[in-house]
Amino acid sequence: MVTDRLTAVVTVADDGGSSGRLRRELGVLPPGDLRMALAALCGDDEWGSTWSEVVQHRFRSEGDLHGHAVGNLLIVALWELLGDSVEGLDWVGRLLGAHGRVLPMASVPLDIVAEVELDGVISTVRGQVACALTPGRVQAISLVPEDPPARPEAVAAVLEADWVVFGPGSWFTSVLPHLKVPELARALHATRARRLVTLNLAPQPGETDDFSPQQHLEVLRQHAPDLSIDIVLADTGIVDDPDALEKAAAALGARLVMADVAGRDGSPKHDPRRLASVLDEIFLSKR
Amino acid sequence: MVTDRLTAVVTVADDGGSSGRLRRELGVLPPGDLRMALAALCGDDEWGSTWSEVVQHRFRSEGDLHGHAVGNLLIVALWELLGDSVEGLDWVGRLLGAHGRVLPMASVPLDIVAEVELDGVISTVRGQVACALTPGRVQAISLVPEDPPARPEAVAAVLEADWVVFGPGSWFTSVLPHLKVPELARALHATRARRLVTLNLAPQPGETDDFSPQQHLEVLRQHAPDLSIDIVLADTGIVDDPDALEKAAAALGARLVMADVAGRDGSPKHDPRRLASVLDEIFLSKR
Repeated sequence: MVTDRLTAVVTVADDGGSSGRLRRELGVLPPGDLRMALAALCGDDEWGSTWSEVVQHRFRSEGDLHGHAVGNLLIVALWELLGDSVEGLDWVGRLLGAHGRVLPMASVPLDIVAEVELDGVISTVRGQVACALTPGRVQAISLVPEDPPARPEAVAAVLEADWVVFGPGSWFTSVLPHLKVPELARALHATRARRLVTLNLAPQPGETDDFSPQQHLEVLRQHAPDLSIDIVLADTGIVDDPDALEKAAAALGARLVMADVAGRDGSPKHDPRRLASVLDEIFLSKR
Repeated sequence: MVTDRLTAVVTVADDGGSSGRLRRELGVLPPGDLRMALAALCGDDEWGSTWSEVVQHRFRSEGDLHGHAVGNLLIVALWELLGDSVEGLDWVGRLLGAHGRVLPMASVPLDIVAEVELDGVISTVRGQVACALTPGRVQAISLVPEDPPARPEAVAAVLEADWVVFGPGSWFTSVLPHLKVPELARALHATRARRLVTLNLAPQPGETDDFSPQQHLEVLRQHAPDLSIDIVLADTGIVDDPDALEKAAAALGARLVMADVAGRDGSPKHDPRRLASVLDEIFLSKR
């Protein structure tokens, strides 16, 4: 099944790098994660792949532009010009021949506040960069502002979806924040879509150090106790204790699916084709 | 006659503003004048006009990006990515649906050196910004480096053209520099194309203060004594002394054509449609 009816709903809480600078300098949503999602969806022809390379290109210099990703600048320019973040992203999507749509989860820039535990002491850390740099284990996250306006298009996409997929991705800073935007969280609970969680291949230093796969699911449950999940998808290689993981999945209402979806290079990245093909199978069998 | 077989050969000597900063920070050709030409050639549909607005958009802030034109950043990114200035410009042209092609006149960034006369004293000024800011009248210009490599595509376009059009534009910094790039100057002399000079509507402060239309032609002759011109086109409103202007045109080998080509708003800008229609008439009658 090849579909263009794909919507990526992306966290807008980055405060580091090019995105963080743009956010501070121009008061816009951090564009970086949106840009990455758009580039990933680009068309396969020369046009799509060239513009995708352009938007991903970063300036390297001793000067002011150093580190800025060109796509971030382009997205921000479209936002300033068109006055609407979704319209701007749709234009970049058209430029890239993107297979699908990329939407910000909220209409305003967000800060992630994390409770981090280190040696039994819990401290509060604000901002994505600080979360990543602070040693210890994140226990829970919340957002500032606490009740940010969701993008209505993102809410609609969730409500109209056949499947909602959580992860893979930075658990606390990319996957769970959606559940902390009230309107979006309501839609994620209310949607008649089936819900699938893709587990990460490895814990993330500074965020989920030593987390087992089942702990990832427990943290999800803590952040959305009433959310029921249909499928938990785990790479076969990460599962040490299938029984424990099956139990953790069942606590969410989910069936565990184990499949060979890791990349071959040993990096903790999924193989996009294999992951797509396994998702495909799951989606088709449940239609 | 509507043609897409149009090539703008553009000076690359700007050292001010966004272009100047990019040139210094990243060691690239100054992209600004190239961007302006591309935007002017953009397609008339929503796609072309939106991307044209995007490339012309300038960031306004208290920070590092202030004043940068988005199209400059996009052009430079394509240059860095593709490693070729013409290929990069062609990609922007495709993005804009540009009617025609825009080429840099040289492969390396240039500096304009001007001899400026003030109160009988002649001084030498280097750089386009300095030329514009120094009071007095420019007498002559030269380039640094003195013998820059021309872009072969620009040379070819001149040799293959039916018509070569000089001006309107900043006389010393946009129109005459082409005659100071040796290979391009040779092509401009050798081409079998007819040559047309469009005179500016007004002198330019700091550059051509008090210059009469005929003085513009004399300066052209001083910079390229052997260049013969076929037509000198002047807006009727700027001609105080038709005999003197006719004589100055004749000294270049040219016939003077006077026509109503100024804008209606009183600014010293040509009306693009009228200018196009008069050029059209001239081109067709001489075919």
